[in-house]
Amino acid sequence: MPTTPHIERHFSASDTVRDVVIGMADGLTVPFALAAGLSGAAASTDIIVVAGLAEIAAGAIAMGLGGYLAARTDAQHYHSERRREAYEVREMAETERREVAAIFEGYGLHGAQLDAVVASIAADRERWIDFMMRHELGLEKPDPRRAPTSALTIGGSYLLGGLVPLAAYFFTGDVHRALLVSMVLTGLALLGFGAFKARLTGVPVLRGALETLLVGGLAAAVAFAVARLIG
Amino acid sequence: MPTTPHIERHFSASDTVRDVVIGMADGLTVPFALAAGLSGAAASTDIIVVAGLAEIAAGAIAMGLGGYLAARTDAQHYHSERRREAYEVREMAETERREVAAIFEGYGLHGAQLDAVVASIAADRERWIDFMMRHELGLEKPDPRRAPTSALTIGGSYLLGGLVPLAAYFFTGDVHRALLVSMVLTGLALLGFGAFKARLTGVPVLRGALETLLVGGLAAAVAFAVARLIG
Repeated sequence: MPTTPHIERHFSASDTVRDVVIGMADGLTVPFALAAGLSGAAASTDIIVVAGLAEIAAGAIAMGLGGYLAARTDAQHYHSERRREAYEVREMAETERREVAAIFEGYGLHGAQLDAVVASIAADRERWIDFMMRHELGLEKPDPRRAPTSALTIGGSYLLGGLVPLAAYFFTGDVHRALLVSMVLTGLALLGFGAFKARLTGVPVLRGALETLLVGGLAAAVAFAVARLIG
Repeated sequence: MPTTPHIERHFSASDTVRDVVIGMADGLTVPFALAAGLSGAAASTDIIVVAGLAEIAAGAIAMGLGGYLAARTDAQHYHSERRREAYEVREMAETERREVAAIFEGYGLHGAQLDAVVASIAADRERWIDFMMRHELGLEKPDPRRAPTSALTIGGSYLLGGLVPLAAYFFTGDVHRALLVSMVLTGLALLGFGAFKARLTGVPVLRGALETLLVGGLAAAVAFAVARLIG
């Protein structure tokens, strides 16, 4: 049996990295697809730049504020559930005690042993509530500073991601040349981002890169077809 | 002490409802803001309809496929972590036993009682692995059919949400009239959707409705300003 403590290599990306991935995934894809789509219908790059920048602004704000509200709602949800558990532990102690017992019965405890465990957890009320939050409801205590950080990270990543496909349209009036440059730049960015995301989540890197490229390519192809059809 | 089992009212939205909320939140906001933005720069509704539909197609596909990959990655992550736990339980049993002990020490168990609990959990290897997955890593067994359902629900909700703000531009060539109708329709939809989301998450309904309206309004205002400035 090993005596040196082993370090568990279970990966769990930090919240910030996850927010970058959330913002970048849509930021690289949707403005690219919109610009590619409009390339199928527009005569000059001017309107594509206007539509693209308007979309990036809208997307960054919608996703950023969406992330803000989601993080704040998570925190409120945690606190309201904790108040409810506190109430239940106080007013319906026997029922809550039975819920603790049921969790450990599921892991094969019974009799005096089970009673001892339940008594030990229920001995300290705060610890008891923490136990119910974590093990009955599966809720983790949220970071109170998460909402504003999350908003800026998601919105900023969307903005940065969106400028990659659009950059090509800034420097030329020729729609088809801009589309080509945009496809190459965004294709490379999608491959790199997909590989990065794959490493984080433990997916094989090449498959992750190709899948991310495929999502961007499909979205752009369908947007192109839609714009062509009606444009 | 109560003898009838009480039903815990902790709310947890189903995965499908959560996917509808994810798709609808962006679907109502981004196409609305893009169309409003282009209304500040475009002379006719034609280009707004083309750009709007291209954006909706791109967004629905990007978000839908994004949801598909995320659900599949979650499932793969769960299974690879479970294989790792199974390996660790088999090859580093003493270390893993100490990890179980540490969890219960945190809840005030010690001595013979602690040993008995650890022995009971470790007696059945599958149960032991399940315990580590749920209580050490906080990972729940994922639904294997979630990925395709999630993709269709998110993508479909984005599409439906996006058609609300765009509908106004279909029926008139007058950009300003269309923008006005779009603002009223989308404003009402955002209020209704915000109220619905608030009820699900336990946020006060009026505040939830107004916040959702504010996000859509802000995104549209900034997109409008961007398009005006450069258009």
